[in-house]
Amino acid sequence: MTLPSLLLEAGSHQLEMAETLIGVLRFLLIFLAARTLAEVLVRFQLPTILGELLAGVIIGVSGFHLLVPPESQVAINESFVQLISSLADVPAPEIQQLYNEDFLILEGVANLGLYALLFLTGLESELDELVAVGAQAFTVAVAGVVLPFALGTIGLMVLFQVDLIPAVFAGASMTATSIGITASVFGELGYLKTREGQIVIGAAVLDDILGIVILAIVVALGAGGSLEIGPILKLVAAAVVFVVAAIALSRSAAPAFDWVIDRLKAPGEVIVASFMVLAVVMFAATAIGLEAALGAFAAGLILSSSKHTHAIQRAVIPIVSLFATIFFVLVGAGMDLSVVNPADPANRAGLVMAGFMFVVAIIGKVAAGWSFLSDKPTNRLVVGLGMMPRGEVGLIFLGLGTASGLLTPSLEAAILLMVVGTTFLAPLLLRVVLKDKDPGADSGDGSSTPQPEAQLTA
Amino acid sequence: MTLPSLLLEAGSHQLEMAETLIGVLRFLLIFLAARTLAEVLVRFQLPTILGELLAGVIIGVSGFHLLVPPESQVAINESFVQLISSLADVPAPEIQQLYNEDFLILEGVANLGLYALLFLTGLESELDELVAVGAQAFTVAVAGVVLPFALGTIGLMVLFQVDLIPAVFAGASMTATSIGITASVFGELGYLKTREGQIVIGAAVLDDILGIVILAIVVALGAGGSLEIGPILKLVAAAVVFVVAAIALSRSAAPAFDWVIDRLKAPGEVIVASFMVLAVVMFAATAIGLEAALGAFAAGLILSSSKHTHAIQRAVIPIVSLFATIFFVLVGAGMDLSVVNPADPANRAGLVMAGFMFVVAIIGKVAAGWSFLSDKPTNRLVVGLGMMPRGEVGLIFLGLGTASGLLTPSLEAAILLMVVGTTFLAPLLLRVVLKDKDPGADSGDGSSTPQPEAQLTA
Repeated sequence: MTLPSLLLEAGSHQLEMAETLIGVLRFLLIFLAARTLAEVLVRFQLPTILGELLAGVIIGVSGFHLLVPPESQVAINESFVQLISSLADVPAPEIQQLYNEDFLILEGVANLGLYALLFLTGLESELDELVAVGAQAFTVAVAGVVLPFALGTIGLMVLFQVDLIPAVFAGASMTATSIGITASVFGELGYLKTREGQIVIGAAVLDDILGIVILAIVVALGAGGSLEIGPILKLVAAAVVFVVAAIALSRSAAPAFDWVIDRLKAPGEVIVASFMVLAVVMFAATAIGLEAALGAFAAGLILSSSKHTHAIQRAVIPIVSLFATIFFVLVGAGMDLSVVNPADPANRAGLVMAGFMFVVAIIGKVAAGWSFLSDKPTNRLVVGLGMMPRGEVGLIFLGLGTASGLLTPSLEAAILLMVVGTTFLAPLLLRVVLKDKDPGADSGDGSSTPQPEAQLTA
Repeated sequence: MTLPSLLLEAGSHQLEMAETLIGVLRFLLIFLAARTLAEVLVRFQLPTILGELLAGVIIGVSGFHLLVPPESQVAINESFVQLISSLADVPAPEIQQLYNEDFLILEGVANLGLYALLFLTGLESELDELVAVGAQAFTVAVAGVVLPFALGTIGLMVLFQVDLIPAVFAGASMTATSIGITASVFGELGYLKTREGQIVIGAAVLDDILGIVILAIVVALGAGGSLEIGPILKLVAAAVVFVVAAIALSRSAAPAFDWVIDRLKAPGEVIVASFMVLAVVMFAATAIGLEAALGAFAAGLILSSSKHTHAIQRAVIPIVSLFATIFFVLVGAGMDLSVVNPADPANRAGLVMAGFMFVVAIIGKVAAGWSFLSDKPTNRLVVGLGMMPRGEVGLIFLGLGTASGLLTPSLEAAILLMVVGTTFLAPLLLRVVLKDKDPGADSGDGSSTPQPEAQLTA
């Protein structure tokens, strides 16, 4: 309840009013920016995720400071603070504090959006097709990790005289594909169920697992400690068990799920039961040291052969439309582009290195598209470009590197530009390459068909 | 990303892993408890919201301490802490701290669920019917506020020698109907669009507004300060303007909304645009001192004559199924029933008073069902019972009273029992009264028809 200003404990109720106003206004700004840009982009037949990322850049740390993660230490837009402060009659410093405290809720909802997106991606995947392209996906994942890592590390050491440890860290930051961005672009363009789409999704999942292992090794090296092989082997074993179990369960668990659903009578049973499966698999993935997001994808895969799959998809899509948008806007909002501004002379040293990393990051992943043998016609460029966006995973690497003090400002700027460049360029190039091809649905032609239907019919 | 234990900054990543595990496990426990009970209840043709509230009591502060709001100061279940602690390799005290910090996300999502529920209630309301029963709803709201307040305050003073201020406060705590519980029960039973349903929803909305005004007066009195009439008049004026504007907009804003939707091309436009309308109206309601929840209902009402209403409903229902459940489980989890345990002699003094308040709380609202003139046949008992549940609003009053130090322990226990009793009894009695009547759909017969369809076809 929000209460007027004459109350006992008026302070705490005005704070509650301010909290609500901050939360609602932030929500509005996120969607106003993201959807305005999305409307422009669909008219150029470009993926709307670009609009979400760009919206984040515009209202975030690099732009108007309306959406600023507390860890960025950036002051919130003055007008935003003044508006809330005068409406709720709460002093400006407390507005800033409330803003930061409640950012946790926004991040929680954004993560829910990412999990829902990967759950949906799993639901829309074809297990048989995914298993059929398993060898190709594995090769693409390994090549897409080894090539950028080797080229990047060696290049930084030889061409730019970077020390071994920072070079290894920067090389590692180029290895991880953003499965969220890839899944979103392929889903929106209606390409998820194509052979290329399944290779990319499979490879992105494996890449995510490899990324965790690489990060474990690199950070252990960076800490100067001895590299213990035991925990890493345990992690690899856990990952293998998890993938095998998920595939095995996809064959057998869906009928059990359907049997349970048929016996449930309380309303809303399909959506609630499927989210409980999602939670169980996410819990298992996290408990063995993998990412919760991988668990979300595996949960979708397990339920992809349920007879209720379409009902689950219909229920999950609104959650994705709302909350995954918040996720991608937050990714954009966290990018501080001031360090790569070429107008600032201090940045120029980093920019040459950034250009090098950017090129290697593209070449490394695109080349991975040619790394496998295939008896069926496969568009290798689509596979390579699909693996290109580094997105939030690259930003996590950057944050770790910065926190550990391993990276020079130039190297930090170079990693950021590599992440930003690949993230924005991949959806653009994919759209160009896929332009003349139609996987069946008209989902990519900028018609007003909502994403839900497009994804379901693709 | 969750990382294994050998990492640099291992602490922070293990904490992240622990956070994910806590969040996912809490989600699982909430739904496991709520849905198990819901399955039992539907088989007795009882509203599932009873299961959600009861689930909260069982896993919450009064039960297993698995779901404990930080402000309750109750220690979390030892096994829960041990499980997460051993899985994430994080010391137990830090688990407790993480649990408390992240409770904010759960509460944020729960509030989203309440807003979505009231938005859906507004969408499913018939504006013409609501306006047609406006006079009746107003009378019910006023009578349902005046009767319990007068009977309660005078009774407590005369029969139990309670002082004026605490008696006024306790009387005031009996005035506010929980619109969330009422909307949920009428929605599930398919009675939202009946004449009785619309009177109850209209009255509950007005009751909410009256509640804010009463609370403002009571708390000002309680603080011993002079009662300023200016701010209260301003609040009343704001409320009147808000209601009139919402009704006026329901007639004219929907075509404008439809015009905009028809011009949007980015996927997911209906759900995103409708949530943006929701956010704008919630912002307006909060900014003038009303509750955000009222804004959510008004937003639904404004969009109820859109040609996209059904698409919006379909998209909102999964969000309600998931998040409103969390809201009601949290309401139950916050009820500390140990103070009303009759086995404890210290509680017995309060229990007699509690019994009195409970009876007055029922009589006051049920009698309000007979307070209006009607030219059409109306089931007055249904109207009275619909206004009965105090739910979360009663708990907010209790929290305020406790914080202000106005209430004796006996009086606190009495208010709690009144809230718990009316909250649990109302859905039960409504089900009994509505048992032999069928508003059209078979949504109340415990068939496996999911709530979505039931609500849409009702």
